[in-house]
Formats: sequence, C-alpha cells, structure tokens
Amino acid sequence: MSDQTRIAIVGYGNVGRGVHRAIERNADMALGGIITRNPARVREELGQVGGIPIPIFDATGLNQGPPSEISITTDVAILCGGSATDLPKQGPEFARDFNTVDSFDTHADIPEYFAKMDEAARANGRTAIISAGWDPGTFSRARVEMDAFLPGMTPEFFYGLTKKGGISQGHSDAIRQLPGVADARQYTLAIPEAIERVRAGERPNLEAGDKIWRDCYVVLEEGADPEEVDNAIRSMPNYFDAYRTEVTFISQNALDRDHPGMPHDGLVLAMGETGEGNRAMIEYRNEMASNPEFTGGILVASARACHRLNQAGRYGAYTMLNLSPADLSPHSTKRLLEDFV
Amino acid sequence: MSDQTRIAIVGYGNVGRGVHRAIERNADMALGGIITRNPARVREELGQVGGIPIPIFDATGLNQGPPSEISITTDVAILCGGSATDLPKQGPEFARDFNTVDSFDTHADIPEYFAKMDEAARANGRTAIISAGWDPGTFSRARVEMDAFLPGMTPEFFYGLTKKGGISQGHSDAIRQLPGVADARQYTLAIPEAIERVRAGERPNLEAGDKIWRDCYVVLEEGADPEEVDNAIRSMPNYFDAYRTEVTFISQNALDRDHPGMPHDGLVLAMGETGEGNRAMIEYRNEMASNPEFTGGILVASARACHRLNQAGRYGAYTMLNLSPADLSPHSTKRLLEDFV
Repeated sequence: MSDQTRIAIVGYGNVGRGVHRAIERNADMALGGIITRNPARVREELGQVGGIPIPIFDATGLNQGPPSEISITTDVAILCGGSATDLPKQGPEFARDFNTVDSFDTHADIPEYFAKMDEAARANGRTAIISAGWDPGTFSRARVEMDAFLPGMTPEFFYGLTKKGGISQGHSDAIRQLPGVADARQYTLAIPEAIERVRAGERPNLEAGDKIWRDCYVVLEEGADPEEVDNAIRSMPNYFDAYRTEVTFISQNALDRDHPGMPHDGLVLAMGETGEGNRAMIEYRNEMASNPEFTGGILVASARACHRLNQAGRYGAYTMLNLSPADLSPHSTKRLLEDFV
Repeated sequence: MSDQTRIAIVGYGNVGRGVHRAIERNADMALGGIITRNPARVREELGQVGGIPIPIFDATGLNQGPPSEISITTDVAILCGGSATDLPKQGPEFARDFNTVDSFDTHADIPEYFAKMDEAARANGRTAIISAGWDPGTFSRARVEMDAFLPGMTPEFFYGLTKKGGISQGHSDAIRQLPGVADARQYTLAIPEAIERVRAGERPNLEAGDKIWRDCYVVLEEGADPEEVDNAIRSMPNYFDAYRTEVTFISQNALDRDHPGMPHDGLVLAMGETGEGNRAMIEYRNEMASNPEFTGGILVASARACHRLNQAGRYGAYTMLNLSPADLSPHSTKRLLEDFV
C-alpha cells in the first residue's frame, strides 16, 4: 500500500486537466482514476500525451452507485463539473460514496449547496469540501482573515489587474450562445481608480460596475449584423448591462492567435485603521497564466485536507474557511515548525 | 455571565497597549485584567487615558501561581513580553494556569519553545498558541499556503517596501546600547531589485543581505566620536555586518520630530509555474503605521481561536499554522457562508 492520497478526477474538462497536472506536481498525491461522461474521448486524449494506464470510468453508470473498483482505490473524488447544472446534481450523489472536493462557485447558492452536501456526506461518514478554488476559496480565506485582524474594515476584491485582464469563461460562453456569434473571449479588467480609492482609505461604497469593466473579442458568423450582436451583448442582464463593456469584432484567426490561454488574476484588499488613526493595510493577490491549472493546485491541496479531516472523524461539509494551513500542507509538524513558522 | 472572551494582558509595553486597543475594536472580547511588573506605572497611564476600572495585578507575585481573581476571570492570557528573556521563562509558567497566546519571534528557537509550551499546557488542560504576529504568524501562514498551492516554488519574503521602510525595534535597541549613543531608530528597507528578480521568475538564491538594507538615525551622546560609533554599528555581528548599512547622525529633536511611530511592512511572494510553463504568482502583503497595534489585532484574533480550541478539548501548543480562518473569525458559520465565502 502506498502512503499517497489517491484522487479520482470527476469530469475531464479544463479544470479536470488542471487537477491532473497538479497531482503530478505533488509527490504525496496519486491519480486513482478518471470518471467521465465520455471515456472514449478521455482515453484518446491521455493516450496522446503519454499512454499512462489510468483507470477511466463511465460517469453515466454512476447513478446506480460508483463502480466498486474506483471507490476502493479512491481517497478523495475531485468534482470538476460546472456549478450551474453538474455540481448541484452530482455533488450530493458523489458525497454519499466518496470524500469530495469541488469548486462550486455560484456565491448566492453556497448555503443551500452546503446544506445538501453536509447531509449526504454526514449520513455516510464522508467529508465534503465545497467551493475550493481562488474565489470562492483562497479569496474567501483572505476576506475572513482580514476581517478578523482588522475588524470593521470590509475587504474589497478586484479582478483583472493585469494589462490584458482575466478571461471569464462564464461571460465568454454567454456571448458564444448569442445568435450570430461564432466564437468569443471576454476579459474582465479592474478599474484602477476604484483600487486607488480603497488604498487611499476612502472606504467607497463600490458597486460591481465601479470595480471592473468587460472587454469582449467576438468572431461573427457569416452575414451576422455587428450592431445587433453589439447591442445583444451590452444589454445582457447581470452579465453585461451593469458594466462598462467594449466589443471588438475580429477574425477567428486573430482570436486564436492573439487571445490564447486562460489567464486571470485578482486582489483582496483591506484598508483601515488600528488604535486611534494608525493606517493599516493587508492585501492578497494572485496572477496566473492558466486559471484551471492554478485552481487545480488549490483543489489538490484541499483534497489532502479533506482526506485528513475524514480520517480524524470530521464528517459532513466544510469550506476552505475550516482548513488550517497545516491541513493543506504536505509537510510534518516538525518541518513546519523548523522551516515555515 | 457575558459571552465575551475575557483577556488578561501580561506585560503592558508597546505590544500590550496594542492588544488593549485591539480588544476595544472587537465586540466579542473584553479586557479581564492586566498583569505587570509595574502596577503603579500602568495605573497612572490608564488613569490618564480615561480612568477605566481595569483590574491590575503585580506580576512579581506570580511565581507562586496567579492570584485567584485573575485566573477565574480570564479565558486567555496574551503574553506581551519579549522573546529574548521574558517569554522563555514566563511562557511555560503561564501555560500551566492559563490558556495563552504570544508572539514569540526568535525563529531558530521556535521548535524548543513549542515543546516546552506543549508540555506545560497539555499537562494542565490548557491551550497555548505561540508565535502569533505577522512574522512569525500571518506570514508563516502565507508561506505554508503558497507552498501547498504552488509546490516547489519556495516563497520569498521581504520587509520595508515603503519609502521610509519599517522600524526594527530589535536593531534600534542594539544601537542604543552602544557606548556614545543617546538614542537611535533603525529602518529596514527592501532592495527592490531582489523583488524584481523574484517577480521575473528567476528564483535567485537570496541571502538576507541581498533582500534588505539598514538605515540608521543616531543621536550621539555629548563628546562621542561619530566615526567610532559608525564603525561599531556596521561591524555588529548578525545585526549589521551582513547588510548594507547607512548611518546618519541627527539631534534628539530631529529624531523625535522626523521619526515618530512604529511603521512597518512586508511581503511574501511565491512565483512559479503550473502545468507546463504557465506562470503563476501569489503574494501577501501588509503595511501598518503602528506595528504593535497591528500585531495586537492578530494576537486578539488568535486568542479567540485559542479559547475555542481549549473548549473543544484541543490541549497543548499550537501555532497559527493550526488555525483555520473560521477559528479566527468572530462570525457564525451561517454568516461566513452567506457573506464571506
């Protein structure tokens, strides 16, 4: 038997691939198997990148319970499906048979999803860590800690501080689904003046549209009317109507050439006072060329913590707010005391 | 009975005062009392700022055990003494009779201090959280988390990124103790080129002297030889000999006027890759006009966690690496799920 934590990846899209890459960078982690709706595609893809003999299971059969091979060889299942339709259904099903980690990110629905995962996991002696990514996830941790260390200084957060901004997969997909659109990429960009106001200690009451704007690169279908598409994007409720939005029409070639990858970045910032008027500031920032690979690293560290919590008898649902740095770390208490404190 | 966590402040110097200010900003915290070697001085000082009837106890009598009044009314004692001589002796004594939090900061001696505190606390059903400040403390947390999320990307840390830099109390004291010196303030300043090299992904092997330099403002005693004092500072082992050091002689008036307060700041930075060559970066930064007040905020949040750990039967010694964000936060699970995740 190995001392490694054995991970099942559930769903092999961008995030699933990112988790796979992260497992390879963590010596105490091993890939136990992949559960997918499309085993043929995943077999072909993984055969292409190295021919590793990874157990691959068909997700469509899992409604009647997971195949015994995979539940025996898995310590934690990392659920890599989307928050809109996959996780609300898959999450509670998997939490009955596996310890699970996911990056459920529909902020408003987190309390409800938490309750469902808690019930399913607790009843079956499983541990489920939900909403583990960077936001929600590490940014949630930063918000809670800043609030604890500097009480009353509501932390603000911003996305897209880099020159090009950060790709929003959700907003890119929303544009792609409009009539007349062949392809699209949407960058979220911070409004620097808003950050400066927070840094200056103003404590402004910022709406979402005061903090970021949206930069869209769109490939039209042949014969589509640019003005119509432009209007359809700008007026899309929640996604674009409350934000300054720029739309640029380009060719598919230009989109593929000039807008590759899935970069993103963000900042959590608390600015306030201690004592009587002494300025204090904490900020947490990240920046990544590959959002799904970066998220994969956080999911894998959370899976390590999930396995430990389950072994300690801590059943039910948790978020990253319940995990200590030591829970997330591969290192021993001795090593942490000597080299990290 | 109140639901507040009752704190005893042990030692009423700069950090003790900072803890006092932080308790006032946390509605779930109350000051139970102050334990000091100099009750007369503290009574006079607190009388001056508002005449609050705070129980003040003489620390010199505590070798025979704490006065019963204070141990009854205290949930956590925050030990605000220095790491050189106070804490190694006081810590284990207090950990027998109180739950304790301290900011022990002699990095090399942390494993030994941890072991002593663990033994004293565990044997008496107490919980001791050691090394809770910003470094060690929140910076330790940042280092461990960055290492967990981006394995192999050893986090670097820097101090004094602001224009003036950060006051090092230890280095200021070391200069003050030299013959011929009436007063002194030492600013630690980051070397920006070193930070740029890390940001550029170079992963340079940085010695302490490559990361910071030391800017000293010194008031001479009458008749002292500037050149002698200058040499004595520059050649001081560990404190100055390995660093670029600037010494400026000024009058006491100029020192008091131009160099007030105890500002400090720092940065933890991990720069690396995910997958195959995708750049990734996490940074944690703080900046404060009053180092002891900022540290006080961290100590008080850690005292909240300490009380909770003790109530949950988690006895013995811990560091901030063992605390989850929820442990540190005043908010309920419900509130955290709704407003912070």
